[in-house]
Amino acid sequence: MCGIVGVIGNKEVAGNIYDSLLIIQHRGQDAAGIVTYSDRFNIKKGEGLVRDAFQEENLNFLKGNAGIGHVRYPTLGGMGVENAQPFISNTPYGIALAFNGNIINFDSLKEKLENDSRRIIISTSDAELLLNLLSAEMEKKPAFSPDFLFEAVKGIFEKIKGSYSVVALIKDKGILAFRDPYGIKPLIFGQKDNNFCVVSESVALDTLGYKIERDVQPGEAVFFGTEGKLYTKKISEEKHCPCIFEYVYFARPDSTIDGISVYEARLNLGKNLAKEIKKKGIKIDIVVPVPDTSRPVAISLAEELDIKYREGLMKNRYIGRTFIMPHQSKREELIRIKLSPVKEIIKGKKVLLVDDSIVRGTTSKKIVQLIKDAGAKEVHFASSSPPLKFPCYYGIDMQTRGEFIACKRALEEITEAIDVDSLTYQSIKGLIDAVSNQKVKNFCTACFTGEYPIKADKEEVARIEAARGCKNI
Amino acid sequence: MCGIVGVIGNKEVAGNIYDSLLIIQHRGQDAAGIVTYSDRFNIKKGEGLVRDAFQEENLNFLKGNAGIGHVRYPTLGGMGVENAQPFISNTPYGIALAFNGNIINFDSLKEKLENDSRRIIISTSDAELLLNLLSAEMEKKPAFSPDFLFEAVKGIFEKIKGSYSVVALIKDKGILAFRDPYGIKPLIFGQKDNNFCVVSESVALDTLGYKIERDVQPGEAVFFGTEGKLYTKKISEEKHCPCIFEYVYFARPDSTIDGISVYEARLNLGKNLAKEIKKKGIKIDIVVPVPDTSRPVAISLAEELDIKYREGLMKNRYIGRTFIMPHQSKREELIRIKLSPVKEIIKGKKVLLVDDSIVRGTTSKKIVQLIKDAGAKEVHFASSSPPLKFPCYYGIDMQTRGEFIACKRALEEITEAIDVDSLTYQSIKGLIDAVSNQKVKNFCTACFTGEYPIKADKEEVARIEAARGCKNI
Amino acid sequence: MCGIVGVIGNKEVAGNIYDSLLIIQHRGQDAAGIVTYSDRFNIKKGEGLVRDAFQEENLNFLKGNAGIGHVRYPTLGGMGVENAQPFISNTPYGIALAFNGNIINFDSLKEKLENDSRRIIISTSDAELLLNLLSAEMEKKPAFSPDFLFEAVKGIFEKIKGSYSVVALIKDKGILAFRDPYGIKPLIFGQKDNNFCVVSESVALDTLGYKIERDVQPGEAVFFGTEGKLYTKKISEEKHCPCIFEYVYFARPDSTIDGISVYEARLNLGKNLAKEIKKKGIKIDIVVPVPDTSRPVAISLAEELDIKYREGLMKNRYIGRTFIMPHQSKREELIRIKLSPVKEIIKGKKVLLVDDSIVRGTTSKKIVQLIKDAGAKEVHFASSSPPLKFPCYYGIDMQTRGEFIACKRALEEITEAIDVDSLTYQSIKGLIDAVSNQKVKNFCTACFTGEYPIKADKEEVARIEAARGCKNI
Amino acid sequence: MCGIVGVIGNKEVAGNIYDSLLIIQHRGQDAAGIVTYSDRFNIKKGEGLVRDAFQEENLNFLKGNAGIGHVRYPTLGGMGVENAQPFISNTPYGIALAFNGNIINFDSLKEKLENDSRRIIISTSDAELLLNLLSAEMEKKPAFSPDFLFEAVKGIFEKIKGSYSVVALIKDKGILAFRDPYGIKPLIFGQKDNNFCVVSESVALDTLGYKIERDVQPGEAVFFGTEGKLYTKKISEEKHCPCIFEYVYFARPDSTIDGISVYEARLNLGKNLAKEIKKKGIKIDIVVPVPDTSRPVAISLAEELDIKYREGLMKNRYIGRTFIMPHQSKREELIRIKLSPVKEIIKGKKVLLVDDSIVRGTTSKKIVQLIKDAGAKEVHFASSSPPLKFPCYYGIDMQTRGEFIACKRALEEITEAIDVDSLTYQSIKGLIDAVSNQKVKNFCTACFTGEYPIKADKEEVARIEAARGCKNI
Repeated sequence: MCGIVGVIGNKEVAGNIYDSLLIIQHRGQDAAGIVTYSDRFNIKKGEGLVRDAFQEENLNFLKGNAGIGHVRYPTLGGMGVENAQPFISNTPYGIALAFNGNIINFDSLKEKLENDSRRIIISTSDAELLLNLLSAEMEKKPAFSPDFLFEAVKGIFEKIKGSYSVVALIKDKGILAFRDPYGIKPLIFGQKDNNFCVVSESVALDTLGYKIERDVQPGEAVFFGTEGKLYTKKISEEKHCPCIFEYVYFARPDSTIDGISVYEARLNLGKNLAKEIKKKGIKIDIVVPVPDTSRPVAISLAEELDIKYREGLMKNRYIGRTFIMPHQSKREELIRIKLSPVKEIIKGKKVLLVDDSIVRGTTSKKIVQLIKDAGAKEVHFASSSPPLKFPCYYGIDMQTRGEFIACKRALEEITEAIDVDSLTYQSIKGLIDAVSNQKVKNFCTACFTGEYPIKADKEEVARIEAARGCKNI
Repeated sequence: MCGIVGVIGNKEVAGNIYDSLLIIQHRGQDAAGIVTYSDRFNIKKGEGLVRDAFQEENLNFLKGNAGIGHVRYPTLGGMGVENAQPFISNTPYGIALAFNGNIINFDSLKEKLENDSRRIIISTSDAELLLNLLSAEMEKKPAFSPDFLFEAVKGIFEKIKGSYSVVALIKDKGILAFRDPYGIKPLIFGQKDNNFCVVSESVALDTLGYKIERDVQPGEAVFFGTEGKLYTKKISEEKHCPCIFEYVYFARPDSTIDGISVYEARLNLGKNLAKEIKKKGIKIDIVVPVPDTSRPVAISLAEELDIKYREGLMKNRYIGRTFIMPHQSKREELIRIKLSPVKEIIKGKKVLLVDDSIVRGTTSKKIVQLIKDAGAKEVHFASSSPPLKFPCYYGIDMQTRGEFIACKRALEEITEAIDVDSLTYQSIKGLIDAVSNQKVKNFCTACFTGEYPIKADKEEVARIEAARGCKNI
Repeated sequence: MCGIVGVIGNKEVAGNIYDSLLIIQHRGQDAAGIVTYSDRFNIKKGEGLVRDAFQEENLNFLKGNAGIGHVRYPTLGGMGVENAQPFISNTPYGIALAFNGNIINFDSLKEKLENDSRRIIISTSDAELLLNLLSAEMEKKPAFSPDFLFEAVKGIFEKIKGSYSVVALIKDKGILAFRDPYGIKPLIFGQKDNNFCVVSESVALDTLGYKIERDVQPGEAVFFGTEGKLYTKKISEEKHCPCIFEYVYFARPDSTIDGISVYEARLNLGKNLAKEIKKKGIKIDIVVPVPDTSRPVAISLAEELDIKYREGLMKNRYIGRTFIMPHQSKREELIRIKLSPVKEIIKGKKVLLVDDSIVRGTTSKKIVQLIKDAGAKEVHFASSSPPLKFPCYYGIDMQTRGEFIACKRALEEITEAIDVDSLTYQSIKGLIDAVSNQKVKNFCTACFTGEYPIKADKEEVARIEAARGCKNI
Repeated sequence: MCGIVGVIGNKEVAGNIYDSLLIIQHRGQDAAGIVTYSDRFNIKKGEGLVRDAFQEENLNFLKGNAGIGHVRYPTLGGMGVENAQPFISNTPYGIALAFNGNIINFDSLKEKLENDSRRIIISTSDAELLLNLLSAEMEKKPAFSPDFLFEAVKGIFEKIKGSYSVVALIKDKGILAFRDPYGIKPLIFGQKDNNFCVVSESVALDTLGYKIERDVQPGEAVFFGTEGKLYTKKISEEKHCPCIFEYVYFARPDSTIDGISVYEARLNLGKNLAKEIKKKGIKIDIVVPVPDTSRPVAISLAEELDIKYREGLMKNRYIGRTFIMPHQSKREELIRIKLSPVKEIIKGKKVLLVDDSIVRGTTSKKIVQLIKDAGAKEVHFASSSPPLKFPCYYGIDMQTRGEFIACKRALEEITEAIDVDSLTYQSIKGLIDAVSNQKVKNFCTACFTGEYPIKADKEEVARIEAARGCKNI
């Protein structure tokens, strides 16, 4: 994961970039960076949350009518602020670049680039590789023009295997944004009084008062010229398949990605999940979400089943988010401090717990135990997504294959492992139906189905798995 | 506000105190402190959140089988770590004390104490005054005994006007806990294998596996002797009137205070509020809570009205809590970054917004505007509590009287001021009915009714109002 | 070690206290604290250097026309800011106290105090014990007066075994200062326009423009009343024996202690040491000091021998002071980075190295090796003090007995151990003659002679040795 | 100012680079950075002192057998860690570069480079410009070889006006070092077991056990190949004129620059200055240095005059260095806290103060006053260098012309301004004679004589003066 933003127009942009980063902070809390261009590049990066990385004085320093920003997903290694995005290159022109995604063929691309061009990649960051690929392409062009830029992006599309949404600030010329040919990662742009904002999630546009123009298309490049002109070009024609896990878990519910409201998708997931529950004829008294992601799912599921929806698990806001924090404490009681049951709600009830997914199952098991200890008569479990079985090669930092509880286990085994009275998964069809709209019906569901839109060879898989937790994927 | 905890028994207590402070962190995020007694007192205080104030090494240093802890509510002044609780006194015995509440007659008590006893109060903290009152009382006793201790508490009850829940660690003798005669602030204790824990909210007992014994009674003192024996004494016989705002807003929903489940109280608030809505015959399409406090209210309100419950406002977890952070940014867009509407949910709908209360009305107005901008057809507003009209003298850091929007305005004026199609308040009766149980039917509702259980004279009111924002009330 | 200061008069004192602490910073770099009294006590303590512990805003906060300050010697344990001085007590009156010295009979005094008075000592700090002894004495008095205060100090003199220079701020009444009956630790006071300053070293008075009045006498108490009046009383009549090591090493050369200029004492040490060198008939080419303490010694020694004085060892100012920093790096080259020879000066020369003392000999040996590597023809070594053989019980954090290289070794053995061509120690007589003046001819020389002015029994020695490195002695 | 170092060989270099930076820390205390190459570039930069910028873990991370480091001189602007050196460029090869000096024609060079090469300079750092000039030159070469590298350096020599000593780490190929054609800034290298170290000052080589090979020659480039081979080439044939102020003030006394011992040069300065004193027939009692730089000057001056040398001014080590810290406190007493007189030494004496130079005269005047206040009978002043009259264009952050006290004032006026009984400057001849050796007799003395070896035109002077205090010169 990661979040990116670019803003350009006829007034100072640092404030809008900063606010955008606050709004997409859920996409990465490890480091943040902003680069603007006035008559020079202005750079500030910092570790930790956006609110900690930037002070008033930094925003004053970040002058200019064009700029880009980035929030980085937490990683295990001591990457430090030196490796925070945006990256910046001196030649040609001066280009700053920030990126969300994962480059599968990093090693071979790096090797080829270094052999072909005498360029070197200094860090282990995909962003730096992308920046240098773009720079190397642009160096071949005799001069700068949006057309040449789009040709350069074409060159990149031809070389890279992987997912990537990119914003690049090209000196005093403008901001380039593009999305990989499959459109795996989100990217959307809007306009306000001749100012453009391009950003990972639509909620930033809504919040800051930008009128949403549209999502950047898969395989499309967009160039926002400093003079105020917009250039767009559809460069590649692969089949669009956005990451379905954005809808299930990652994106903010108040975002709309590729025309699909994340909140509505989650309501739909609840409806479809309700059908699975009904099929099984399970009797329950209350529906309880595991906060926060699965609340809308549980609300609509409860409506569909006509059963009471109750927030029977309270989340401690002062600790952190299981999925996000890599340095997880090993203390036994941690889960009990993070999540605590409302006994009065649960006591004597047949409870249906709803969560967005089950990864290793260990947390699910602990949560189930909490509910039992609070006096539940029965505990049933429903996952708003199907069984997670396959690793993601496109930037979601999930487990390696062997660690998925659903990898080689039958439903009964998992039911037993997490110790519930019944376990219901969303079906693949239920998932896709819930998310699809009129125009977009095809998604990357590789983590559930193993059908990877872009294949990775053995070495590439090995590298991705080795990099888990220590790289910016 | 503030949160307190005491733990004593036959094993190391620092871990349980630390965990308790994490669990009651919502009661104060400005500073935290722990004092334990092994063969000596061990002290560690720090500014900010519990997770920042204590490191592993600090917990290892805090040895002992008895100890107390405190989380402090944020304040404007540069109070620093020197003034963090617990406070500790060398004589008699060595007593450490932590406190939740507000002493109305601070000035006259301080003056009297300093005149009578040659004791001086160094800080402006009520806790230090309480500690010295207790110490001065105990100094008069010929020796230590639980009976003498209870007599000392009686002396305090007779002197102090105000609210106070207190824990005090008395050297190697044990932990004293007491609650003011009206029982305004919560305090509860539980037991686990001969270990006792006394704490502001029951959720800490549940989470850490303590069996809840009971709430400390109003006007009761409890002494947990080091030898494992429990002494209790009801010292004062005033009419119990716990703070009703704890149920409406402050306490965690997974707590039970004086036998009343906070979550159930909030569900009841929703039911009763629904009746008010029905009376008015307002037609609405969806019920939307202002997160987080009013969610359970909105859920039951929606059930009662048989209208869809939707989380149409998303809260940014990376910023902070309006009510809590005193150094509020002045930037206009802040509210939009903190709360953003789910347009797909709201567009074209008649929305009923549910919030826990309306203070100055400025935030409510901004939220209403957000919902309108997101395309709502109508916006109605419901407050789960009655109009706030009177300042609190017992420790809730609300506005002074003049600042309450409901102070001298009719319903129509407020409706217009926050710019909604209709505005519905909970009735006083609805509020009290929702919270009451068989045994507890009388509450402090001063902030709604002006009926103060303990009166403050003019000077005292002046001092309280002057101290707003700069004192630990 | 440690440094203390008190300032009182008719204007704000925080600035003078802060500056004094900067000036006596060499006496302790581990923590610093200031307490002032305006209409209340104002407290600020911090870890590390004075310049880091206090910000502008802290000094503004520390209002008042009377106050005291302290710098703490670095210690191994995690004492933290909670245990920084000054300590403060609520009763009687409110007394803040800071201290330089060491209480030998801490354990028995603490036990007796706790038994007799129901007071408890919370930390392991001698300062807290002293504060409570003083408070307990004052509690017995019917009212406050300078006479009662001097009686209380008398009570302390009778109880404490050890060295102590003390400043105490007594609420709105004034500042008390006293020095132990033997006058082991320095304490001096001066006056400027009706303001008094009492401080560890005279250089602070000179720098801040105070006219030096005189040293506080051994066994004398001085009280600076808020009304501007000075009260003094000689309470005890022991034989004055100031610590001679202050002159040799600790004190600043621009200080005058008990009428003796530290700089002149060091020049005299050089002269007397020259006589020892002459006796041996050693031929040398240049005299090289080990910086910084032994420079004046080496200057006068070179003059006396009529040999060139050269600074052949350069000190790196960006690292730290061997004797002071307890967390010494273990890296081999550290000494070479801290001290480096000027080869052009040393090459081919017979070098006489001059250092203030030899403790374990390991550093001396390394320095000798440095000089040899730089090409010296011969290396001779002179110590401006006699062989260190006995541990200090009065607050100098030297080694335990077994670690002194001179403890059970003959001169030849030490010469061989540090690998020099000759080794010359100052004689005891040379030391005492160098430091003595007309009035003061008797010193504590226990670390050289084993003649302790105040005896410590076995348990006390054991406690002192156990506390090495982890206590504020 | 600034300090640079490069280390290459057959073992890990981070430790040696770190130690070197500690040793040359006096050349810059504002920021520090290290870049090494293992199979990738490893980068760590930090603000403040070397000891604060790097932790153990950073050094472990900085793997590789080749690397360079830098310490930055403090500057006023908020340059931050983003602009700390070394800078690094992706193409060609990957080059990291660190630099000491000042580029006079920065603006025109930058403009030309950006026009000619589509390269952009992102920061305002001369180092980044130099790196890109080098990169642009290397890009024109068909392949890498030491010869091509030397040609590239030739291209740089032809373009740059200014002073510069440079180290550059070229990916896995080796380390390039070069010194401007006039050899204004120092640079020296040594060898130890097939490892090379090239560094600003020789003391680092001595300390770390490297055998000094020789100074890099003016206009010479040296390349240390990864395979262990040394390539050198004298590229430019200008007249050597090293900065004479290095000997007077900046360099460590234990360094040897261009074969001249800094310590001996300072002794000679003292001798020659003595002649000036003698000429005037001034009678004095003691010679007192203003610490630290002028100590060796004062020692030899005193010898030559056969007058006593006394350290009559003590420096507080816990504050900072006048010349270095740009955020000078404005408090009046600061000088008194930084420097304090030893009254016993000064009282009643005719004192000759010796300082390295007089800039604005304000500090000198304050010091003179200190000495007078301490009771001196007469105060005479001697400057070990001639009157400072002209600004430095080559990297010494002195005043602009108008601020030099000696700019348009006669000796009598200055004598009166700093309020001394007599004032004696070193003569230009005395200065040059003191520093010269057999081989090097020509120096840059522009700040004294206005004879600039490299001329700056009007715009360039304007830029340099504007950048005072806010740029890395």
